[in-house]
Amino acid sequence: MASPDSRKLALNTATTRAKWGLAQAIEGCARHGIRGIAPWRDQLHAMGVAKAARAIRDHGLTVTGLCRGGMFPATTARGRRRAIEDNRRAIDEAHALGARCLVLVVGGLPRGARDIGGARAQVKDGIAAILPHARAAGVPLAIEPLHPMYAADRACVNTLAQALELCDALAPERTGDRSTNARGALGVAVDVYHVWWDPQLREQIRRAGKKRLLAFHICDWLVPTTDLLLDRGMMGDGVIDVRRIRGWVEAAGYRGFHEVEIFSARNWWRRDPDEVLRTCKRRHRLYC
Amino acid sequence: MASPDSRKLALNTATTRAKWGLAQAIEGCARHGIRGIAPWRDQLHAMGVAKAARAIRDHGLTVTGLCRGGMFPATTARGRRRAIEDNRRAIDEAHALGARCLVLVVGGLPRGARDIGGARAQVKDGIAAILPHARAAGVPLAIEPLHPMYAADRACVNTLAQALELCDALAPERTGDRSTNARGALGVAVDVYHVWWDPQLREQIRRAGKKRLLAFHICDWLVPTTDLLLDRGMMGDGVIDVRRIRGWVEAAGYRGFHEVEIFSARNWWRRDPDEVLRTCKRRHRLYC
Repeated sequence: MASPDSRKLALNTATTRAKWGLAQAIEGCARHGIRGIAPWRDQLHAMGVAKAARAIRDHGLTVTGLCRGGMFPATTARGRRRAIEDNRRAIDEAHALGARCLVLVVGGLPRGARDIGGARAQVKDGIAAILPHARAAGVPLAIEPLHPMYAADRACVNTLAQALELCDALAPERTGDRSTNARGALGVAVDVYHVWWDPQLREQIRRAGKKRLLAFHICDWLVPTTDLLLDRGMMGDGVIDVRRIRGWVEAAGYRGFHEVEIFSARNWWRRDPDEVLRTCKRRHRLYC
Repeated sequence: MASPDSRKLALNTATTRAKWGLAQAIEGCARHGIRGIAPWRDQLHAMGVAKAARAIRDHGLTVTGLCRGGMFPATTARGRRRAIEDNRRAIDEAHALGARCLVLVVGGLPRGARDIGGARAQVKDGIAAILPHARAAGVPLAIEPLHPMYAADRACVNTLAQALELCDALAPERTGDRSTNARGALGVAVDVYHVWWDPQLREQIRRAGKKRLLAFHICDWLVPTTDLLLDRGMMGDGVIDVRRIRGWVEAAGYRGFHEVEIFSARNWWRRDPDEVLRTCKRRHRLYC
């Protein structure tokens, strides 16, 4: 398979967050010819939404996604309502940025809980509650299935099949509507780090199809992995066949960006972000 | 749901391996009234198979499983042949102990490889190669799906569904044979640590049924988990609803042991194993 179109490379700002704020990341992308960016809300708030939107527009960048909404489960009804309110604000911010989607990291078990089925029901209710607002704002919601090692504390949606079942249940408009090009109101973010191990990956990507595939995130799985959260690898340094998975999402109709998202406390976060961006570009060409 | 039958508790000797050899673990089980034991092969070899078999028999213990066979994928054909030969020796040892099964941790990617589909094909070939020897010895093989965080380096079989597909492909004798009580020649080991997050868990346990459910391992998932391998929790200290899952395996016909397997470098391995065994008994009654 051929190297990817370099214009598809995007930067998730988690990759540079240890050293760069959002303004620097925007300028860095522009300087390195990286045409897509996915900001995180804490950095967005620090910069200011209007100012960030203007800087991103001025540099001609595409916002591939806003990170993140979600985190629906809570012990109390009040906690769940607050999560829904916060998600509505996130939708408004995504709208202000013209983001291609709002990424949903749906949340894990409420503190002290052992009922993962109950948490999953809360997630479904939460997404249902915010979907009308997202539709009205024209912001697609991208459910990101997270690796099962995050099921307890970050996201109890852990496979692409499970995410797509939520999509089918909550936004079944896709049926009979295959000929349009529009992104669906509800879809998935496929991050190779979370799904590379899944024996059903290829068939579930095919099932998702163009309308449900809202984002494609890349990095690598290191062997050994020394930290559950902050030890992701640069493409090419681990065991994920990123290029093969890219082939599958493209075969399913995905034409969007390839967004590099690397949490790496021991390596990439310690380096000069300009070096990191140069490495991303080279590794994207070689391994993605 | 009621507390479990205390006579179902078994000790996987990984739980006490930092302080006890196999002989001590056998005596410890006898002393605490724990009636099942699952040894690891390194400790078995250190004690001697014949001596261990005699001690286990003298104390009236059931060997709930031998840990472990598997580790099939390798870069070279010679490497794969050596793995198969080692698995045949493991089957002989399991036979000598009268073990209820040989647990298969199937292995991950060969060094430097990125082709998880290829590794999975090697696993299938490996199990097919040893199955006749296992049948002849009367030793059921229990494929243990491991948590997806081990897909690269320990086991590329990562869900119960995937393990059962291997069973159905390699040992389809189960069809039409539901009325017998015999354990199948090929089945699965269900370890709550590896599968608790799986949205399909209940239905796949039901699909497995009595003949395919060869072992049931218990411990807990801690929040936070600080190490990918050596930070398992004692039942009750984490987020797994062990009792609910026990209900599912029993509803599917499982009548075997509940085997405690805790790798815990920072906590339980540092404690007096007699205290650990007392805690296992209490937590088994309270949470399993």
